[in-house]
Amino acid sequence: MNRPDHAAEARTTPRPVDPESLRAFVSRVLHAVGLADEEANKVAGLMVTADLRGADGHGVFRLPQYVRRIRAGGINVRPTIEVVRESGNTALVDGDNAIGHLVVSFAAERAIEMAARAGVGWVGVRGGNHSGPGSLYAMLPLESEQIGIYLAIGNANHMAPWGGVERLLSTNPIAIAIPNEGGPPLVFDMATSVVSYGTVKRYAKQGKPLPEGWMIDERGQPLTDAGRADSGLLLPAGGYKGYGLSLMVTVLAGLLNGAAVGQDVVDFNHDDATPTNTGQAIAALDIARFCDPDAFKAHVAAFTDQLKGSRTLAEVNEIRLPGERAHRTLVERSRSGVPLTERLREELDELAGSLGVRALPTA
Amino acid sequence: MNRPDHAAEARTTPRPVDPESLRAFVSRVLHAVGLADEEANKVAGLMVTADLRGADGHGVFRLPQYVRRIRAGGINVRPTIEVVRESGNTALVDGDNAIGHLVVSFAAERAIEMAARAGVGWVGVRGGNHSGPGSLYAMLPLESEQIGIYLAIGNANHMAPWGGVERLLSTNPIAIAIPNEGGPPLVFDMATSVVSYGTVKRYAKQGKPLPEGWMIDERGQPLTDAGRADSGLLLPAGGYKGYGLSLMVTVLAGLLNGAAVGQDVVDFNHDDATPTNTGQAIAALDIARFCDPDAFKAHVAAFTDQLKGSRTLAEVNEIRLPGERAHRTLVERSRSGVPLTERLREELDELAGSLGVRALPTA
Repeated sequence: MNRPDHAAEARTTPRPVDPESLRAFVSRVLHAVGLADEEANKVAGLMVTADLRGADGHGVFRLPQYVRRIRAGGINVRPTIEVVRESGNTALVDGDNAIGHLVVSFAAERAIEMAARAGVGWVGVRGGNHSGPGSLYAMLPLESEQIGIYLAIGNANHMAPWGGVERLLSTNPIAIAIPNEGGPPLVFDMATSVVSYGTVKRYAKQGKPLPEGWMIDERGQPLTDAGRADSGLLLPAGGYKGYGLSLMVTVLAGLLNGAAVGQDVVDFNHDDATPTNTGQAIAALDIARFCDPDAFKAHVAAFTDQLKGSRTLAEVNEIRLPGERAHRTLVERSRSGVPLTERLREELDELAGSLGVRALPTA
Repeated sequence: MNRPDHAAEARTTPRPVDPESLRAFVSRVLHAVGLADEEANKVAGLMVTADLRGADGHGVFRLPQYVRRIRAGGINVRPTIEVVRESGNTALVDGDNAIGHLVVSFAAERAIEMAARAGVGWVGVRGGNHSGPGSLYAMLPLESEQIGIYLAIGNANHMAPWGGVERLLSTNPIAIAIPNEGGPPLVFDMATSVVSYGTVKRYAKQGKPLPEGWMIDERGQPLTDAGRADSGLLLPAGGYKGYGLSLMVTVLAGLLNGAAVGQDVVDFNHDDATPTNTGQAIAALDIARFCDPDAFKAHVAAFTDQLKGSRTLAEVNEIRLPGERAHRTLVERSRSGVPLTERLREELDELAGSLGVRALPTA
């Protein structure tokens, strides 16, 4: 069970912020750098949802970077996001270099409409940007009794083709959300690398060494110094299988849509100004076209009860379902607040000062 | 690079059979056990294509098992495969317990029609059976300038939920096929386990030990005796990630369609008579709805040239693309024949004898 335990780390941090204050703060910051109120609110809501669900490398942690990009002209704060091709049940969206959350939400809404109308919708995105964890968008179809599938090109290449040492693939996440009865939805959200680069960045900020098996250097040796992560390669999950999946996602979420792939991917950790032309894809599938949605959810619950009820290996206390820990974290943090490290809090205070907006509350 | 090297093993086997003779033989056998001529030919073509592409655990190797099932009444040789629900761009197909190849081909044809009409089609299957490697069906949309995506429930549970020891998940393969310019298509075909059970069965037939990391026993210890594979658990590819993917495929390819999942999965290695109610799903995506198909293929070629051109680790000679080895095997075996082990050849000769059909040619 070597999944990085975000929640456990979070418990060691002393200062939680209540979600509403955090959301209002993020919105103030985004408004101060030029986003319209409604759009700043929308992005802030999605970012704080990421934090509430424990995606600590993808929520407010990214705000200073987004602001840096916006200031450098690398994100368009007054975009015209539009459908540039539409026919039947597919669409291609150009994000006009908007912040990714707005672009992917827009695409997801189109996919949901199409699925409601004709069973399945598939929307590709180009001209987008980093949009936080894929689970946010895969979950959007849920309230329409639909299944959501999300694929994305990451915003920096950290993987090589299997056997290679050149960074030509990003971590290319895949997220799938499925409704359930009486429990949280199944929400699967994987990077095609062993871990996401967001996790590596958190380790670096916390000065923690990386476990072996996450990264190698260009000679193929294990790389455990998180401070040297820039010079290393993330390993694909499952070896050549993760490589193959990553390649397929690159085509489906990027190349098909005219987004940047391979050598054209802009490393947004080192370049704040060049448009990233990020690609994503989202599909929505209407459950009622296959079976009664309530019966479906009951079957999901019965099946996952079988999984949860499995006998376990001696050292394992509990079988987990995809999205279960994120949901627990959501419940816990909705009550107790989003824990922020001192270092992140300082960054956010500096950011507020530099923009002349009210900082996060101190209590 | 710990992918099992089917081609290398195949080179040690002495007796190749020419593909046309093999196809005719499979067709004779299937016809002798009750399939209509046209359907026997169709299944034989797909099975031999699997062998030509090097999927040695999924081609003619399975014929004795299929015949055993048919004789035991576990496969319906005169089925009525039909669309039981259709609306817009989705359909649900009931395979009437036909041999899986016929059911999934039928579903793929519907998905291709839908994608041609409106950009994307998604067809779910229930009441099917084992249908060989997913790549066969993911590739069907290619000739219509479409991308194919195939998901399936395996025909026996060999995986536990992550941390568990009860066999509640099959290896649930995922296959994706993407056209390319000037080279073979990209054809990705992965089991969500570290290896497929077909590979384990081949090791068992050849008396070879399993590498560590493929299977564990119920105490979590490595299981390397292929003869004991029945009592073990295949490990998911990428640990909890492979588990999560397998779970999602179970829902998308099985539960959504009313096919058997979890405790209801029939182990077709030990039960020849009970209908398996196998589930699959196939999606087709029309490239022209996103960009010009020729330009797309040129971009795929340019991107994969970047990958192929990557500097490599010292011990690696070549970067491979998904489907590349299968294509080379196809070219080689189309010329030199499909190599069959002595043991398989004997089984096929016995089968021919018991059915009173002409055996494979001996030369």
